[in-house]
Amino acid sequence: MMRTTVTSFSFLLYLGLITSCQKTAESSPPDPMESLAKLEWIDLSYSFDSTTLYWPNNPTGFELHTEAEGMTEKGYFYSSYSLSTPEHGGTHLDAPVHFSEKGLKLDELRLDQLIGKAVLIDVSEQALADRDYLIDTAAIMAWERRNGQIPEQSMVLFRTGYGKFYPDREKYFGTAKTGMEAIPELHFPGIHPDAAKFLAEQRKVKAVGLDTPSLDYGQSQDFASHQVLMGNNIPGFENMANLDQLPDSGIYIVALPIKIKDGSGGPLRVIAGVGR
Amino acid sequence: MMRTTVTSFSFLLYLGLITSCQKTAESSPPDPMESLAKLEWIDLSYSFDSTTLYWPNNPTGFELHTEAEGMTEKGYFYSSYSLSTPEHGGTHLDAPVHFSEKGLKLDELRLDQLIGKAVLIDVSEQALADRDYLIDTAAIMAWERRNGQIPEQSMVLFRTGYGKFYPDREKYFGTAKTGMEAIPELHFPGIHPDAAKFLAEQRKVKAVGLDTPSLDYGQSQDFASHQVLMGNNIPGFENMANLDQLPDSGIYIVALPIKIKDGSGGPLRVIAGVGR
Repeated sequence: MMRTTVTSFSFLLYLGLITSCQKTAESSPPDPMESLAKLEWIDLSYSFDSTTLYWPNNPTGFELHTEAEGMTEKGYFYSSYSLSTPEHGGTHLDAPVHFSEKGLKLDELRLDQLIGKAVLIDVSEQALADRDYLIDTAAIMAWERRNGQIPEQSMVLFRTGYGKFYPDREKYFGTAKTGMEAIPELHFPGIHPDAAKFLAEQRKVKAVGLDTPSLDYGQSQDFASHQVLMGNNIPGFENMANLDQLPDSGIYIVALPIKIKDGSGGPLRVIAGVGR
Repeated sequence: MMRTTVTSFSFLLYLGLITSCQKTAESSPPDPMESLAKLEWIDLSYSFDSTTLYWPNNPTGFELHTEAEGMTEKGYFYSSYSLSTPEHGGTHLDAPVHFSEKGLKLDELRLDQLIGKAVLIDVSEQALADRDYLIDTAAIMAWERRNGQIPEQSMVLFRTGYGKFYPDREKYFGTAKTGMEAIPELHFPGIHPDAAKFLAEQRKVKAVGLDTPSLDYGQSQDFASHQVLMGNNIPGFENMANLDQLPDSGIYIVALPIKIKDGSGGPLRVIAGVGR
């Protein structure tokens, strides 16, 4: 009698555990909404205004024109503006067609290429020591030794540390000059074409971004890294902000450019979700 | 002896279940990245091009100017454009300062006001039957009877069904005319000011959006719903696309406007994450 009681009690305990166990399994992973609530979002975009940096030979930068601003005759306040800007300046996206005739245009990029997991490779020590530093495959391999191989279809962000100079043109570009005469004097770090090729072919990344004005370094003549990446339909994010706030991995990027039909690029609002 | 054996067996089973239960709990919920991979993202934004719809009295619309397009003398392809546009046209965001002198400007909106859970209220039956339909509190209450009360800090999206007319100016606005003479002939649905007040004060929503050119209906003289929402620092999303692809709830919105310093609004890329 006593033995039966104990066994029945154990059996009930067993049933209870199975039930609570199933509840845990059912209620935890499948709801992405709850996971999203756990993310902290960080803005990786600069504001657009009269100080926004453009490539030195752009004849104009960002302009905001006042269309209306003040009280209306009906007694309510109203303000409205219009804007003009080159596609490529400030925090922006380079669509593949920027350097590849058959590459995807801005509006043709699918959301799944603009959204997803990213890794951050910090090369600021090398880049801040040498304005002409080229991010090489060795820098990527060094990151992989610490963090494991970059998974396919990742986005790769490089932190050169030059973001801290933005929007000081001289410190950011290496010259305060504008116009064509500034071009030979551009000195800022960029991605070595071999590293671009490695990311495209060996790691099959879906996007690349960094905190400088260009994927290629300032002294580039042929924009070879642009050519390699865009030739593989890989877009680039340039002049990214706040990369110093990101961890090495566990980053979820949402990169949403203004949807310009047939655009070669354009103003980009890019944010990163990281675990709280 | 037999009794001890059975009890010990039950005890071991019990221990085993606790262990496997803990493993399930440990390995499933903490990685939000895995849950995010389960989201399907839907683009709620129209492309910007020469057909993009602006308020009829805008002197200009969206313009893309070719700066470069073709083979360079160095042997690689290069294309680059510049753009100009009024802030308020196509899929765009109204910042509170658009109708409220002390309201938040476009670049002052925090990411947590632009990102989060949303509900969709489908009023297309009423709106398609009456071009001057005003979305009233009753329509919101009808949704709540089926789905429960709208949680505080939600975004609320209204589907009027007028999205299917975009970019046909006559069907979308109610008139093909442009210029000031078009204004009295605007006929499209909008939000009743009482419903706007209810959403702001009773439901404390953080953003409102819809698939028409304006939060207020076409015949509005004073844009009272804009005034109410913006007076409460609630931004609006106008000319949203693809609202017919959304469920009633379980929607995660990421609304990223171009970050214009001191802007009253601007081109918006807005996407919705829904469970697959």
